[in-house]
Amino acid sequence: MADINKVVLAYSGGLDTSVILKWLQDTYQCEVVTFTADLGQGEELEPARQKALQFGIKPENIFIDDLREEFVRDFVFPMFRANTVYEGEYLLGTSIARPLIAKRQIEIANLTGADAVSHGATGKGNDQVRFELGYYGLKPDVKVIAPWREWDLLSREKLLAYAEKNGIPVEAKHKGGGAPYSMDANLLHISFEGRHLENPSAEAEEAMWRWTVSPEAAPDAPEYLDVEFEKGDIVALNGVRMKAHEVLTKLNELGGKHGIGRLDLVENRYVGMKSRGCYETPGGTIILKAHRAIESITLDREVAHLKDDLMPRYASIIYNGYWWAPERKALQALIDATQQTVNGWVRLKLYKGNVIVVSRDSKTDSLFDMNIATFDDDGGAYNQADAGGFIKLNALRMRIAGRLHGK
Amino acid sequence: MADINKVVLAYSGGLDTSVILKWLQDTYQCEVVTFTADLGQGEELEPARQKALQFGIKPENIFIDDLREEFVRDFVFPMFRANTVYEGEYLLGTSIARPLIAKRQIEIANLTGADAVSHGATGKGNDQVRFELGYYGLKPDVKVIAPWREWDLLSREKLLAYAEKNGIPVEAKHKGGGAPYSMDANLLHISFEGRHLENPSAEAEEAMWRWTVSPEAAPDAPEYLDVEFEKGDIVALNGVRMKAHEVLTKLNELGGKHGIGRLDLVENRYVGMKSRGCYETPGGTIILKAHRAIESITLDREVAHLKDDLMPRYASIIYNGYWWAPERKALQALIDATQQTVNGWVRLKLYKGNVIVVSRDSKTDSLFDMNIATFDDDGGAYNQADAGGFIKLNALRMRIAGRLHGK
Amino acid sequence: MADINKVVLAYSGGLDTSVILKWLQDTYQCEVVTFTADLGQGEELEPARQKALQFGIKPENIFIDDLREEFVRDFVFPMFRANTVYEGEYLLGTSIARPLIAKRQIEIANLTGADAVSHGATGKGNDQVRFELGYYGLKPDVKVIAPWREWDLLSREKLLAYAEKNGIPVEAKHKGGGAPYSMDANLLHISFEGRHLENPSAEAEEAMWRWTVSPEAAPDAPEYLDVEFEKGDIVALNGVRMKAHEVLTKLNELGGKHGIGRLDLVENRYVGMKSRGCYETPGGTIILKAHRAIESITLDREVAHLKDDLMPRYASIIYNGYWWAPERKALQALIDATQQTVNGWVRLKLYKGNVIVVSRDSKTDSLFDMNIATFDDDGGAYNQADAGGFIKLNALRMRIAGRLHGK
Amino acid sequence: MADINKVVLAYSGGLDTSVILKWLQDTYQCEVVTFTADLGQGEELEPARQKALQFGIKPENIFIDDLREEFVRDFVFPMFRANTVYEGEYLLGTSIARPLIAKRQIEIANLTGADAVSHGATGKGNDQVRFELGYYGLKPDVKVIAPWREWDLLSREKLLAYAEKNGIPVEAKHKGGGAPYSMDANLLHISFEGRHLENPSAEAEEAMWRWTVSPEAAPDAPEYLDVEFEKGDIVALNGVRMKAHEVLTKLNELGGKHGIGRLDLVENRYVGMKSRGCYETPGGTIILKAHRAIESITLDREVAHLKDDLMPRYASIIYNGYWWAPERKALQALIDATQQTVNGWVRLKLYKGNVIVVSRDSKTDSLFDMNIATFDDDGGAYNQADAGGFIKLNALRMRIAGRLHGK
Repeated sequence: MADINKVVLAYSGGLDTSVILKWLQDTYQCEVVTFTADLGQGEELEPARQKALQFGIKPENIFIDDLREEFVRDFVFPMFRANTVYEGEYLLGTSIARPLIAKRQIEIANLTGADAVSHGATGKGNDQVRFELGYYGLKPDVKVIAPWREWDLLSREKLLAYAEKNGIPVEAKHKGGGAPYSMDANLLHISFEGRHLENPSAEAEEAMWRWTVSPEAAPDAPEYLDVEFEKGDIVALNGVRMKAHEVLTKLNELGGKHGIGRLDLVENRYVGMKSRGCYETPGGTIILKAHRAIESITLDREVAHLKDDLMPRYASIIYNGYWWAPERKALQALIDATQQTVNGWVRLKLYKGNVIVVSRDSKTDSLFDMNIATFDDDGGAYNQADAGGFIKLNALRMRIAGRLHGK
Repeated sequence: MADINKVVLAYSGGLDTSVILKWLQDTYQCEVVTFTADLGQGEELEPARQKALQFGIKPENIFIDDLREEFVRDFVFPMFRANTVYEGEYLLGTSIARPLIAKRQIEIANLTGADAVSHGATGKGNDQVRFELGYYGLKPDVKVIAPWREWDLLSREKLLAYAEKNGIPVEAKHKGGGAPYSMDANLLHISFEGRHLENPSAEAEEAMWRWTVSPEAAPDAPEYLDVEFEKGDIVALNGVRMKAHEVLTKLNELGGKHGIGRLDLVENRYVGMKSRGCYETPGGTIILKAHRAIESITLDREVAHLKDDLMPRYASIIYNGYWWAPERKALQALIDATQQTVNGWVRLKLYKGNVIVVSRDSKTDSLFDMNIATFDDDGGAYNQADAGGFIKLNALRMRIAGRLHGK
Repeated sequence: MADINKVVLAYSGGLDTSVILKWLQDTYQCEVVTFTADLGQGEELEPARQKALQFGIKPENIFIDDLREEFVRDFVFPMFRANTVYEGEYLLGTSIARPLIAKRQIEIANLTGADAVSHGATGKGNDQVRFELGYYGLKPDVKVIAPWREWDLLSREKLLAYAEKNGIPVEAKHKGGGAPYSMDANLLHISFEGRHLENPSAEAEEAMWRWTVSPEAAPDAPEYLDVEFEKGDIVALNGVRMKAHEVLTKLNELGGKHGIGRLDLVENRYVGMKSRGCYETPGGTIILKAHRAIESITLDREVAHLKDDLMPRYASIIYNGYWWAPERKALQALIDATQQTVNGWVRLKLYKGNVIVVSRDSKTDSLFDMNIATFDDDGGAYNQADAGGFIKLNALRMRIAGRLHGK
Repeated sequence: MADINKVVLAYSGGLDTSVILKWLQDTYQCEVVTFTADLGQGEELEPARQKALQFGIKPENIFIDDLREEFVRDFVFPMFRANTVYEGEYLLGTSIARPLIAKRQIEIANLTGADAVSHGATGKGNDQVRFELGYYGLKPDVKVIAPWREWDLLSREKLLAYAEKNGIPVEAKHKGGGAPYSMDANLLHISFEGRHLENPSAEAEEAMWRWTVSPEAAPDAPEYLDVEFEKGDIVALNGVRMKAHEVLTKLNELGGKHGIGRLDLVENRYVGMKSRGCYETPGGTIILKAHRAIESITLDREVAHLKDDLMPRYASIIYNGYWWAPERKALQALIDATQQTVNGWVRLKLYKGNVIVVSRDSKTDSLFDMNIATFDDDGGAYNQADAGGFIKLNALRMRIAGRLHGK
């Protein structure tokens, strides 16, 4: 067992990380610094402070930070600039939050002189990888404690027994009726795993969903929404400029109201197994649709295709936890360079689970040229005869091959 | 002007290709063979025969073929095996029909001893490229007549005048009220371009859509649908086995009823300009969603990612008209090789524009392993401690770099 | 410690694997099956049998197989069809042998009812990964013993002490003068690592190289060589048809004589660190050059570019040990599909380290069309005016953008 | 025929562009501005001025510019940062010069108020595309005159007749003995096409080569060369700092002396046919080898692989003439971002056609870690047991599949 002096724990205040806090104190006999972040998960953070104090954490070792603006501005928006989707469906809501938590945790380790960090992610999931690649990338020689890979509290029963033995309060939801869903929430999404979702042939139950109404329960009237982009990021909704996290908060509200952004899928984890997850990403679903629409008129074709070709790789990099790795930064340099002209607005219609693009324009950067695109006489803007030569040369290699093999 | 003996014209029986038929006879003084294909566009084909006869086409020179099964089985389904989407949105409904038309046209040219082929696509669009790359790829020295690039009937007025002068009947829709939408339909989709769609900031009018009701007008009750796959293709719906084109016909009916598959976008044409198009692809939208779902449990992660990385390129190849080119065939070899294990079923819920995956399973090929994925104690199926080494080695290069640059 | 009944060891007969043999017997108290493969490494194999007998291995548990033909035909040649090079330089000589060894080892495990396999690769290198991914891919529940990751004989001194204590003969080269190079050889190459190569700023010493003379010491007269391909594989040299391994044997002889195929590089290991290696790949260097040359006239441009785009990924897959993984097989399906037309001959000149292509042709599959390529009047085979339209349409998107941004 | 006021001609002073000059004056009755660039092709430029004057060009309309430094610094070096090679072999010597010529020509058009530009590239080659995509990209509405696509002087005989009729001096090399090679030279390379090279099964004759001695004729003693890099570019040779074009000039001298950089290949032109070319790129061949070597110790693995994956695409973009297109700029942003750490030195040995890397190091940016790479006991820098978990998780998906399909 490593010799630890002081450890910074990513602490939510919930049951699992409270057990970890106690376990760290007992097992490593070290000082614990708690770090609790507001990423828009929609929970009160002050209770985490009270709980930490009850465990004997010194006040100066309790960090509670509102990271919502940084989260959306520096992580969520840059990711959406690439129209990022993992395996065709997943909007990476959990993946994109981990690098920021790791970064802040390391900052706090440096501030407090801690030599170790710890997190509550299990040994089967992707989050352990995302946290720890962040830690190691930002502070190569930090010691990492991953309790789920070390202790023997691997069943829920053992965990609850440990909690009771140590006077850690267990909320009602953890008792009886089996384990709750494993959930993760931040401004971008809320996710659900476990319980009967572990059977991919079983339909998710309606009561599980939290952020969105069902399409069936959404309003019968559609709602229009105007979205304005600058350099690929949304800067205003319905004409009102707002900060990044305010944009996403508002979009979540609108999307949730209209039953937008539910997803039920089986994904491939980096650690090697398939897992079934359900996600609610109301605002992100709207951003993706709107961003593709504004790019459709402001981005050059070959640039757009280059981005599309690279997107799955960029998505895997983030999904696998390599946000702080140099290959992610290199790709981001390319992506950001393409977004200089992605300025303009998109009009959307939200209705019962649908995000429908109805119009789009850009005063400064539209590459859509009506004179050339028109079916009417274009007055010579485009010479149709040019297409003959274009086709002839593009066909040349096929014709040469055809002649050869036709012989 | 080329010396033409006999030309096979892709003939719909509509105004444009009727004008072309007459123009070919007048301009090239050559024999014309008409070819009319049923690709599921939902129009009577016999009137085309009558019209052709009226233009003096010999009965043995009139070809009317039902290609619906071949179209879906050999073109649409192979394309969906790759989850193919152009520019993140477009399901390639027009693109995928052109190679089949070109193939059959060349077969007819060979049957009838024709030395030329002709089509009604304009000089500004992608379809001319798709037709002609097909022609040249399959019969390298065929002569190609593209009237829109040759004649001077470039405005609708001139075309109508030519028609009237030559006694070609002009349907009411072509008169007054400006030009109609430029439409294309087959079993996979119907498309709309032109008119006020040429302004991408104008919303499409509800009256334009033909195959789908609006989500608002769709039934208030959702409908469940069971889809069964074999080697990546759908072979049964709700337990009833059917042929490829019957599957798509049925999915179009269901999708259309539930307001599924409308799309309004600006795309990048191969010939260089952006164009705005509206599409209805009810059945295709369902296939895409279902196919991704069945792959999610039956496909290896790295194979799935390889397919995702290559998909945009494969989509561009088809969009640009290179179906018959060797690079498409090489990619198809890869894609088809991956589909051997894509067997199983997916349950979908259709509701007001939404296609919602609710469950999926495969008796023979599911790679989803509940024992490993579970949050409960897995009895040693997966050793959580392994993750520590996995992370350490994956982090090694970042740690070495961090140490260097931290100095 | 796992409970092992019988283990198949990849046994070279050398010091390290002899120590492992003994250590397995002592530590696991299990029956050992030895497997020694002739992959063309140029060593006598019968001594391995004698040594095995001395360790008490039963005769029926000693397997010595000549795998040379299978190695070149089913592994080396398929890899060269893709012009495979790792990190721009390395011809994957070690990587490509491991999957075959793993496959045969598993076959022997199945034949002999063994429940475990073992190898002599260290815990720092790529080979452990390549062996074990092969084992697990071909026999998912086999037990794997990797002594270097388990035992405490991590220094050379301890290893030698263990050998002496157990009466294992130590050849002179292992004594005094420090450790020898870590070497690996098979028909494709011989590799050197370790010793003063661990300092990448130190030049390799001339005495290290074994299979090739230095360019300086090579003959002063060049030698011409005619190479004939069928479906991408070499089938004849200077007009003499031969089997795959005979081809490579002959090319190694010629390359070695002319100082061809030495390489000194720093590569990135899959396990995370950089390592310096020196390689001699005389025959492989010739194959690569010749294969590219025959493809240059027989492969379609877009197919060639598709292969080039995918090659680095394919190389990494092999380097990292995923030969038996489904993504390698999917890529191979694509690669092999492209090689049907790769038939013809290439003439090379070998001279002091250089492999120079001087001419190439294909009676059946040359896509080189002299009539079109000529600078002389081509009599209309190619209409130069077509290029105008080709350029105009390809430039269109740039012109539209230029007009917009020029405003 | 377009109405032209003033045209800027890329004018070499040679026969072809002199004929073009005269033809432009006669055909378009317009003012001609001549532009002659020194790109290091090794020819006197002042004769071009004299000839232009003889054609009646006004002195202020004659532009002769030394672009050597800009060429290497802003075009050649950025390209080599990507280890750019087209179709596995070609170093893009011609391709990379065209964008600079186009840029300067457009600058001169803007300076002189010209409305048109013209070049001497034929209608069958890539250069017309490269020039014109540059023109259109930088000045969208410029008029382009491509005489080879317009006039009827398509055979060498007609061209010579026109020259004689118009008093244009014809050098001896153009007379008798058939046409000369079609050559292009600049600081990066000299190329040869045409004549008997049009038969790819014919060996190039020794007398053709100009910049390099044959390996056979090169010195019998090798020469060592130290190359120093900063941010991916060479800044010093053998300890002597020099400017970009001085570096390349010196490397050409050294490479030429040692028989380095000859290439004989068949390439795929953008306009659709295969063509055979011979190239001498002595300095570039050295740069490529050295640059890969310095990257091998200073670049992260995943960044290096990302670059390798994108390189063929980047090469095609340049080969096809899209230097000024936004997709090239986006890729360059990525490439340049990766080169910040590419600092250090490489030692090469030049000998009879060989460029041999013998050592490399970086004081500031080496990621090579001897402590970790060593075969000796590393004192815990790397925990070999970690590899077990690494392999287990990487094998997991294959094991799950193996179990399923083994059933």
